[in-house]
Amino acid sequence: MSHGGPPPNGANDIPPVDIAAGKKRISPTERRTVERVRQQRPGDAVVRVRRARFQGFSRTAEAHLEARAELEKPRDLAGVLKRWLVGEPIHAALESHERLTKKKALAVFSSDALSSVAYTPQETLVILLVAGTAATWWMLPLAIGVVLLLATVVTSYRQTIYTYPSGGGSYIVAHANLGEIPGLVAAAALIVGYVLTVSVSIASAVDQMVSAAPGLVDERVLLGVAAIALVTVANLRGIRESGTIFAAPTYLFLAAMFGLIGFGLIKLASGTLVVPPPVQAEIGHEPLSLFLILRAFAVASAVMTGTEAISNGIPAFKPPEPRNAARTLLSMAAILGTMFLGLSILIVGAGVIPSHEDTVISQLTRSVFGEGLLYFVVQSSAVLILVLAANTAYADFPRLASLLARDDYAPHQLAYRGDRLAFSNGIILLGILAGVLIVVFGGSTGALLPLYALSVFAAFTFSQAGMVKHWWRERGPRWRFKTVVNGLGATATGIVALIAAITNLMNPDLPIIPGLPIGWGSWVVLLIIPFFIWLFRLVHTHYAEARVLSALPADPSAVSPIRQHIVVLVARLNLPAVRALQYAASLSADVTAVYLASDADSARELEEHWKTWSQGIPLVVLESPYRSLTGPLMQFLLELKRNENADLVTVVLPEYVPDHWWEHVLHGQSAQFLKLALLFTPGFVVTSIPIHEHALARDQSEH
Amino acid sequence: MSHGGPPPNGANDIPPVDIAAGKKRISPTERRTVERVRQQRPGDAVVRVRRARFQGFSRTAEAHLEARAELEKPRDLAGVLKRWLVGEPIHAALESHERLTKKKALAVFSSDALSSVAYTPQETLVILLVAGTAATWWMLPLAIGVVLLLATVVTSYRQTIYTYPSGGGSYIVAHANLGEIPGLVAAAALIVGYVLTVSVSIASAVDQMVSAAPGLVDERVLLGVAAIALVTVANLRGIRESGTIFAAPTYLFLAAMFGLIGFGLIKLASGTLVVPPPVQAEIGHEPLSLFLILRAFAVASAVMTGTEAISNGIPAFKPPEPRNAARTLLSMAAILGTMFLGLSILIVGAGVIPSHEDTVISQLTRSVFGEGLLYFVVQSSAVLILVLAANTAYADFPRLASLLARDDYAPHQLAYRGDRLAFSNGIILLGILAGVLIVVFGGSTGALLPLYALSVFAAFTFSQAGMVKHWWRERGPRWRFKTVVNGLGATATGIVALIAAITNLMNPDLPIIPGLPIGWGSWVVLLIIPFFIWLFRLVHTHYAEARVLSALPADPSAVSPIRQHIVVLVARLNLPAVRALQYAASLSADVTAVYLASDADSARELEEHWKTWSQGIPLVVLESPYRSLTGPLMQFLLELKRNENADLVTVVLPEYVPDHWWEHVLHGQSAQFLKLALLFTPGFVVTSIPIHEHALARDQSEH
Repeated sequence: MSHGGPPPNGANDIPPVDIAAGKKRISPTERRTVERVRQQRPGDAVVRVRRARFQGFSRTAEAHLEARAELEKPRDLAGVLKRWLVGEPIHAALESHERLTKKKALAVFSSDALSSVAYTPQETLVILLVAGTAATWWMLPLAIGVVLLLATVVTSYRQTIYTYPSGGGSYIVAHANLGEIPGLVAAAALIVGYVLTVSVSIASAVDQMVSAAPGLVDERVLLGVAAIALVTVANLRGIRESGTIFAAPTYLFLAAMFGLIGFGLIKLASGTLVVPPPVQAEIGHEPLSLFLILRAFAVASAVMTGTEAISNGIPAFKPPEPRNAARTLLSMAAILGTMFLGLSILIVGAGVIPSHEDTVISQLTRSVFGEGLLYFVVQSSAVLILVLAANTAYADFPRLASLLARDDYAPHQLAYRGDRLAFSNGIILLGILAGVLIVVFGGSTGALLPLYALSVFAAFTFSQAGMVKHWWRERGPRWRFKTVVNGLGATATGIVALIAAITNLMNPDLPIIPGLPIGWGSWVVLLIIPFFIWLFRLVHTHYAEARVLSALPADPSAVSPIRQHIVVLVARLNLPAVRALQYAASLSADVTAVYLASDADSARELEEHWKTWSQGIPLVVLESPYRSLTGPLMQFLLELKRNENADLVTVVLPEYVPDHWWEHVLHGQSAQFLKLALLFTPGFVVTSIPIHEHALARDQSEH
Repeated sequence: MSHGGPPPNGANDIPPVDIAAGKKRISPTERRTVERVRQQRPGDAVVRVRRARFQGFSRTAEAHLEARAELEKPRDLAGVLKRWLVGEPIHAALESHERLTKKKALAVFSSDALSSVAYTPQETLVILLVAGTAATWWMLPLAIGVVLLLATVVTSYRQTIYTYPSGGGSYIVAHANLGEIPGLVAAAALIVGYVLTVSVSIASAVDQMVSAAPGLVDERVLLGVAAIALVTVANLRGIRESGTIFAAPTYLFLAAMFGLIGFGLIKLASGTLVVPPPVQAEIGHEPLSLFLILRAFAVASAVMTGTEAISNGIPAFKPPEPRNAARTLLSMAAILGTMFLGLSILIVGAGVIPSHEDTVISQLTRSVFGEGLLYFVVQSSAVLILVLAANTAYADFPRLASLLARDDYAPHQLAYRGDRLAFSNGIILLGILAGVLIVVFGGSTGALLPLYALSVFAAFTFSQAGMVKHWWRERGPRWRFKTVVNGLGATATGIVALIAAITNLMNPDLPIIPGLPIGWGSWVVLLIIPFFIWLFRLVHTHYAEARVLSALPADPSAVSPIRQHIVVLVARLNLPAVRALQYAASLSADVTAVYLASDADSARELEEHWKTWSQGIPLVVLESPYRSLTGPLMQFLLELKRNENADLVTVVLPEYVPDHWWEHVLHGQSAQFLKLALLFTPGFVVTSIPIHEHALARDQSEH
């Protein structure tokens, strides 16, 4: 084990001796060396046998090293900033699987659904008011219709819970039962739905904030984007104590809503509930049409968005998981239905006129409790639960994205857990998409809601259609009854999805080009879903192809050995060039050095000294009278590869790496151009042998 | 020479046999192969001995290949566009050295100086008018002063011509005689001067255009930038027929000017020369101060900018070069002085009031010849010679930049001749700098002129001070007289440089921040010149250091052999990974494969199949429980390098190269991060073994 250079570890002057040198190709982690211990008395010879040490690692098995936490220390300012934002990395073994009681589970999985009452009654009312104040009594029949629809959906979903106890999201159910395309449609609808969950919840949270602090009315978009950024960073940290964090605001909100509804109904009955109309209110004079009622219904039914969350989260329940989940689903539906009906009665009874500067909840609270501390408690609880609702999408979207990535429908990076165990890439992607929607739709809850309803109900439909297919195929006990239940669910939700699509195809209030009556509307969703499906399949095809092409043959000897040739590019005869020649000579006997000359004269000096420094490597001089580099060189390499029958040509480039970035400008970029040119040519490998300025300076000062 | 893969050149089914196989390390260009020729009758055996063929190259000597023009064909749209703009590449052997007659030389080297009469009288007049119309008669004494100054400078430069017959620019003379810093000051002053030559000439050409076509008055900056772009592209093409191209417009301009002056003086004498005052004219009422007169003198003396061109271009003259050059210099000075005096008399006599919407030349021509065809001929000749003047800087600046690059004061790229034999990088740099000046100074000739005068006279001063030092050191025949001549020149030009600097330190008409009275002015030049010198020396220090560090030792055996270790990164066991293992195994026995596992389980499957595919390479499993990649891997590589006493660790990465750029997104960028991290760590080399999707697909379809 002799070597010519100075020993890299200066601490140990005695070169180590490899005691396993006889046995070839020992793993570097298992290599043992004998060190002579500094002798105390003449004649003594004490040796120490030592296994190779790898600082920063623990040896967990033969040839297994585990990186220690000390290697995770931030190395630069960006690293320190990331640590501060995102927190210390978490060991893989600490991945927790918190089991939730029914009460906690209700808080965790229902914030999305329950928070909907903060905006759906309001937006339903806005639509009905297009036909004047007389039309607002339609809130009551619509609310009853929504409750019936909710009952259908919940009954249908109970069956899903018992059938897919390990979590039956729309994508899984539709993919497993209906096939690839319906599964992807469900996935695309869910993705759009999750993004809209964030946008709508945050937009509505901003509405509630603005109601309590009217000075912020012009900062809607800014507030919304800031809130999304906050939730995104929180999720990148990984929210560990989720159950506890969720419970308080959810139950506070429930208490606030039931208090509001209870006291409100008492005041209403006693005739003392007076809600002053807002300063700004848009009241239309169109005739009340079926179209308008359907449009209002589609928006009202958005109250049940988020119902699916429980059936996705079954494994988080305490055992017996399916039963506990089913019961939680029923409780949630009962609470949600009661709140929606109660609020509807209050609204119609008190004749509330909605306004985006002052939400219906805010108006009612002010009328029932006055504008004291209690008002701010109720508004805060609404803001909090809406932010939590947005947060649920941050759990669901990255999980769905990772499932899609696992199934090769999305880039594999989406299945990668960051150093806080969260699916970082999915979280960031969701934040960006939701932020864009907030900006494009100007932070308007009303404009986003129909799209939300459409995508959620499309996902519902595919999920329940999948269940129908499931029963039909299985034909287990009571399959006819179960088919009918899920069939009813699928039909009902399908109709709502259709209504949402048709009644909101275009929204002229939200023009794409200001002045033209062509608006953003549900066509965006109808366009995005097929686009996503196309994208999923494109990615899938690519991964499938790559998998087939990268697969190993059954017989290892079928992989033919590689015949290779090495080319060293020499620009002038200096130390970097000689090191590159040495490097190449140490690797192979099939080496050629190439000098690119702009004229024959410039080669002469190089050739004179070639013998001395060549390391036995033959030199070819390429004359490029047109002074171009890449063209002639590429052609030479291709011809060389053919002439030498080489499978692989390795091009070795000496690269002088200066100490400072700006000094790179002084050393030309020819190497980079060549690398780029060869990257897409099969059979070529480019290796830069970097010679570092500071290493050279150190070497010279040592000698 | 057996190999396992299919022969790369499918055309030849019989594998070639290397007849020089006994002699090792033969150059690939000299390798001879024996081919069996397809046999005509059974029993025949015809073989052909053939030297390796390299298509696209001609063999000019043993191991010398010359690239043919066919390799220069553009390969993509950008290439086609470049060819269209810049033209076909020119063979190095065609570099021509056209020798110029005195008449052609006058045209080539004097356009810069002669064209100055198109703007200096005008701008001098503008300054004098600050003290009212009564002050304009000062034009005449100033003109006489300038002619005297011109005589001094020319006399002084005649001595330079005879002393440096191979071309004595200010940089060369000052560097050789006064030392490094004065040489660099001269170079910096020249660079600023050349950039200003382009800016001022083009700005003035635009003034002349605008006078003839007043509709363009608001497009000054746009016209200026477009003209610079045009001249830049023309120079990238390389102007081959320079003598002929230059002669016509220069002599046309001279004819126009002498015609104008001649007929003008006749009309003036006969009292019929009436120049109507322009619509817009700025006439001040300040008292006539010495400061104002000096300021006007500095601008007037800018008429002799470009005088240096002849002494730079001596080698282009027909022999006897110095004598012909000296005579041309005298002719030029005589013509220039006469024109300047003549125009001054006309201006004062006719009481011309200058205006930037209608130049003095334009006003005079209109008054003398009327606004017919002749007017447009004169204006066009002025525009043409000004563009040619700008063009001279495109020859001088890149030549100076290449000299600086040769002396290690500027990036070496500036010494690189493009495929049209022009110093492309210098040409592009000049175009950009001049364009920026046009934009910053709003295309105003008057604002740019004082800076121009300052930089040109600073360069004059250093050049002539260098000559003084030269005579003083040489003490040849008549050295005292020669010292006095150059000393006078240096003193006179030094005073003018000082005047230009002091009288134009700030130009409140050109505020840096609109509204504040802090303006652009000659301080820009006084700041830029030291900055350039600092830059020159920085670059020089770096190149010197790199040269010392890259130098080869006297004894070739002092370059120690490289002890290296190869690490193959395996992400999963597939074809790309096995090819990378094969590649590494074929290069060296010191190879370790590394698998980075996020947990211990993920390694198990890999280890199970390792024996089958390992190529005998031991595997080390790195567990990264915090899921980070770069940190643990870097640490492992550093520890491995230390443990194995390796000088160089080569990291081999299998890289799947998909067919389409977007598919790269699907394959992760971990390899790129690693490459970046290792680029600045001495002793590491990263090699990607690209496996190309289309190559795999072809292989599979063949089997």
